[in-house]
Parts: sequence; C-alpha cells; structure tokens
Amino acid sequence: MRIGSSIAFSQPRSIYSFASVVGQKEGEGPMKQYFDRIEKDPTFGEKNWEKAESRLQSETLALALQKGRLQQIDIDCIVAGDLINQCTGSSFAVRDTKIPYLGVYGACSTMAESLLVAGILTDGGYSSKSAAVTSSHFSTAERQFRFPLSYGGQRTPTAQWTCTASGAAVVSAEGGAPFLVGGCIGKIADLGVTDTSNMGAAMAPAAADTIMRYLQDTQTKPEDYDAIVTGDLGNVGSPLLLDLLLKQGINIRTQHQDCGSLMFDEQTQDTHAGGSGCGCSASILCGYYLPKLQNNEIHRILFAATGALLSAMSPQQGESIPGICHLAELRSQEGLTC
Amino acid sequence: MRIGSSIAFSQPRSIYSFASVVGQKEGEGPMKQYFDRIEKDPTFGEKNWEKAESRLQSETLALALQKGRLQQIDIDCIVAGDLINQCTGSSFAVRDTKIPYLGVYGACSTMAESLLVAGILTDGGYSSKSAAVTSSHFSTAERQFRFPLSYGGQRTPTAQWTCTASGAAVVSAEGGAPFLVGGCIGKIADLGVTDTSNMGAAMAPAAADTIMRYLQDTQTKPEDYDAIVTGDLGNVGSPLLLDLLLKQGINIRTQHQDCGSLMFDEQTQDTHAGGSGCGCSASILCGYYLPKLQNNEIHRILFAATGALLSAMSPQQGESIPGICHLAELRSQEGLTC
Repeated sequence: MRIGSSIAFSQPRSIYSFASVVGQKEGEGPMKQYFDRIEKDPTFGEKNWEKAESRLQSETLALALQKGRLQQIDIDCIVAGDLINQCTGSSFAVRDTKIPYLGVYGACSTMAESLLVAGILTDGGYSSKSAAVTSSHFSTAERQFRFPLSYGGQRTPTAQWTCTASGAAVVSAEGGAPFLVGGCIGKIADLGVTDTSNMGAAMAPAAADTIMRYLQDTQTKPEDYDAIVTGDLGNVGSPLLLDLLLKQGINIRTQHQDCGSLMFDEQTQDTHAGGSGCGCSASILCGYYLPKLQNNEIHRILFAATGALLSAMSPQQGESIPGICHLAELRSQEGLTC
Repeated sequence: MRIGSSIAFSQPRSIYSFASVVGQKEGEGPMKQYFDRIEKDPTFGEKNWEKAESRLQSETLALALQKGRLQQIDIDCIVAGDLINQCTGSSFAVRDTKIPYLGVYGACSTMAESLLVAGILTDGGYSSKSAAVTSSHFSTAERQFRFPLSYGGQRTPTAQWTCTASGAAVVSAEGGAPFLVGGCIGKIADLGVTDTSNMGAAMAPAAADTIMRYLQDTQTKPEDYDAIVTGDLGNVGSPLLLDLLLKQGINIRTQHQDCGSLMFDEQTQDTHAGGSGCGCSASILCGYYLPKLQNNEIHRILFAATGALLSAMSPQQGESIPGICHLAELRSQEGLTC
C-alpha cells in the first residue's frame, strides 16, 4: 500500500538469500571480513573488462542461489542493472539463466531500485521469489566515464573510486529474516552541480529528499533506526547530507553510515572521497548489513542508495548532474515488533 | 497474481490517458493521421540531439497529462527509459517534474516493460496513477550506435530506421477503457545473431517465447485477439516470428501486426526493413491502438514490444545480440467480457 509517497508492504518480505563478491582492492579494505568472496583476478577469467563484470554479476547471483539452496527455476524474475552503456553488464549476466528479466537503471542507486521492484513483484503476488542484482567494475567505469587506465590520469580529492563489486538478494514471499518491509521511490534532485569528480555533492540533495519523505510518511524518527545507510555519498557528500537534513530539523548524525566511506581506508588505499558504483552499496548491503539483520545484531535500517544520472556526454553538453535516491527499509526478526 | 510465468491483474487497470508525438518522417508515413502531434523541427527547439530527445519525451508526457486533465501531483511514479547511454533521455526529461521515477532499460521493448511496471505498481496498490513513458530519436541513435549523420553511411537492406517518436500512457487504478489486464515479463533469447544491421532476426526468438508463454498461461488462442502486435521486428524479423511460432503449432498470421512495419512506407520512405527505437512501438500503441480500444473498434490485443540488449561495444567484443520481449494485454470496455 501507499503511505504518502512511500510504500509499505502488506507483509514483511523475506530476503531469503543473498551474496556479495568483490575485487582485490575492495577485499583489502575495512570490510574485507564480511564479503562472501574476494576475487584477486580482475578479469574474472574473461577476455575484457565488460565480460569480466558480467561474469562477476552472474557468479554473485549464482552464489546467492546456492546459499539459499535455490535453483534458477525457483526465481520468477531477475531485476538487475549496472553502469555500462545499455546495461549490458546485466544483460549478458542474465542471458544464460532463462529467468524473466526486468532491466532497471538507477546508476549507483540500482540496488535499492531493484530491491524495491523485486519487493513489489513479490508483495503484490506477481512472483514468489524475485532476485535483485547489480554490479560495477572499476575498469569498465574508468574507460567509459573517465580515461583509459593506461593514461594514468590524476584524480581530484573529491573523486570516488568505482568498486569492483556485486551484490545479489532474493526477495521471497515466504522465509525468515532479514525482512524487506517497504521503501520509497526516489525523485530526481538537481541543484546544478556540474563537477563530475564530485558525485557525492550531486547526490546528497536526492538522499535528503528521500530520507525526509520516508521519515515523514512512516512517522518515524532517526532514533527508531539502528542505521540510516547511504550509498555512495562518500566522504564529501555525507557531511552535505547531514547539513541538508539538519536544516530541516532532522539529525541523523548518530545513525548515518555510508557505503562509499565504509568500503576503503582513505588513508592507506588512495581512494580519495570513498567508493562508488552500483556494486559498492550492493556488496556492503549483502555482505555486512543483511547478515547483521539476520543474526539480530541490528534490527531496523534504512538502505538509501544514491545514483548520479549522468552520461559521459551530458556534462560535455553543459548539463548538471541529476541525483536520485531510492530507499528500502530492512528489519531483523526482532525488529518486526518495532 | 501469477499465472504460470505470466501476470494477471486483480482488476483491469485503466489506461487513463495517453499521448504520442513523432518527428516529420514518421509523420509522413502510413500512420500519420493517428499521432497527437507531428513536430517538423528535429531539434525540438534544443541545442543538441540528446536534449531534443529529452524535450520530445517530456512534452509527450505533458500532453498525456493534459489530455487526461491531470496535474503532475496526480502521478505517483514515472516509469521511463530510452536508448541513450545511461538513459539520460529519460532522466533529463523527468528531472523537472518532481515525480518519483523508476528508470528501466529494455531497449526497444521499454514501452511494454514500463507499462507492466506501472501496471504492477497500480494493481498492487503502490500507486493510484503511474505513467509509462519512452522515446527514441533518429539522430541520437545514429551517432551513438552507428555513424555520424554527416558520414552518410549506406544502410543494409535488413537495417531498421530508428524513429523520432515518443509515447506516454498513464495507468490508473480507476477510470475507463482502454484497460491493461496483465502481461508477461520477457526472458532473454540469444540464438547467436551477430549482425547489428539485422535486429529483427535477433529479437524474433524472444518474441516467440513470450507470446507462446502468454498464450499457454492464459489458455488462449491467437483467434481470441484482434491483434498480436510486435514492436519492432520489422519486415525481416516478422516472418521469422511467424515461422518460429508455426513450428510450435501456433499460427498468428491473421492477427500479427508489427509497429516497425506499420510506421513507414517501405517503397517510398527508404527505411529498408522498417522502423525501430523505443518510441516506434510506444507512439503507435498510444496513437493507433489505444484509441481503437477506447472507441470499441477493437477489443483485445497483445502488445509485445521487443528489444535488442546490445551496446555499441558488445558486438565489437564478439558478443551476439540478446533479444527480449515484454508483453502487455490490453482490452476495450466490451473486451472485458472476453
């Protein structure tokens, strides 16, 4: 059902199984103990970066199914997307599954968008199990959005590092914790940021809008949540979000965590403002937060993934960067009584 | 609810309002009398082709709202997508609306995908009205997927012509005919076609799979429909679809129509195998079929939009072309008793 401009599911929907796979650099960061698999070969055994990303995504989905003892035939729909032109990272990952496929595009907000759509398909009775999947790869993103790797371009201090990472989660009508209970579809916010090396600033207003709408619609306060997780504002965008919300009288300083900031050690890994890419928040959701909810270590979180809806061409045409933030609320078994 | 691998809505959902806008060449073809607006300026008053496509899409949505006497605030969600890298055609079209936005990617199948998602949001009670929108533009597609226009490249006989066109439809929980009653989410089919100038052949197997699954799941026969509409197999892909279905004992020759073949006069418009692009089937659905359903001239159709999920780069990397086909069933007021 709708509550204001947000969505509340008729029943909590199980995140039946989930998996995370990351690359070597991500596997050397502060989150390294949480991922299901760290792959040292950035090509994932393939001949080019784009095939590597598709392989990363398809293996993450396969691992999520395996962890849940599920077969492909148990999945009614895959909802997936990525950053590669025409979302081919996902198309080629899904191609061999023979599972119905809805392609979505929300840039780095894709995991929250695909979770919401998979949740809606399942809560509405249109599927019994749907999978939400996304990925990103440092090398596909660099050559598409920035420079050839061999050019060795200098990165600015506000730039984020596109993660080689993927997350997959199966939303199910039946099953146990963690649970997806609702969420909020994002609106585009664009305050005129044109610096493509400062995506955090471009996305912060969208995150503020979505989080504020959801708190209002559900009549909840930041204190009601163990964590309000954004992905990926990074070290530059995060304080902007806190400031924007404070101006509206909402203080999330205690609860706020950001997947981009969590992924890397800024001091030792030379990643500047933090991680980014669809796979950053997806892998941290599936590797770090979902297990904690499953084990009743935390009980109620908001997962607010942010995306910058630009192309490599749009800034060259003088366009500013539209931001979006989709939000999903997740709970533990104990958290259901909140 | 699910029926097999298809979807049946709990109630018929009104296509409350709809609009179609096309460019000059499309407005000179056999369908010219059916479109709401034919715009002779291919730039739509903008400085570049990408902005032109966004303007086309935003004006089509605005026209659909205007025809339904709707305000932006009446729309709970826009579900939109297009062919431009990172779907910026849609992002920039939606940016100024402040309406929640789900970006989708299904290549030229996008109108069926967005209709299905808008229908699911509405039938499931997550929105009271959601809009499905898509667009394509000859000049954005040519320079992104093929050659600079000024290069004057020769097109092969099997090539299709990307339409400058857009369609928008508002799916509503309440309202009159035409009605969206259900549909089928496509699976990727890839039989190894690698010729990017022959998309019809690449997409025909996906169309056959989706149509066959829907007929089976709903226990219906081709004769139950006034039209089984594909978009856009064109003049090369259409006979392949008929053959593929005939081999399965299904004859849709009488009912089959294809938006790509309908859009242009092959003899006089030099468009070779027909029209293509997200906007081709979207504008013909919203300009030609939906009014006929509204006026009880036809009663029951399948709208099976097809997409080729390649990028400009994937064929260069040796990949074949994955096809997909999403399907929506539409009915007139009288058709509800079928």
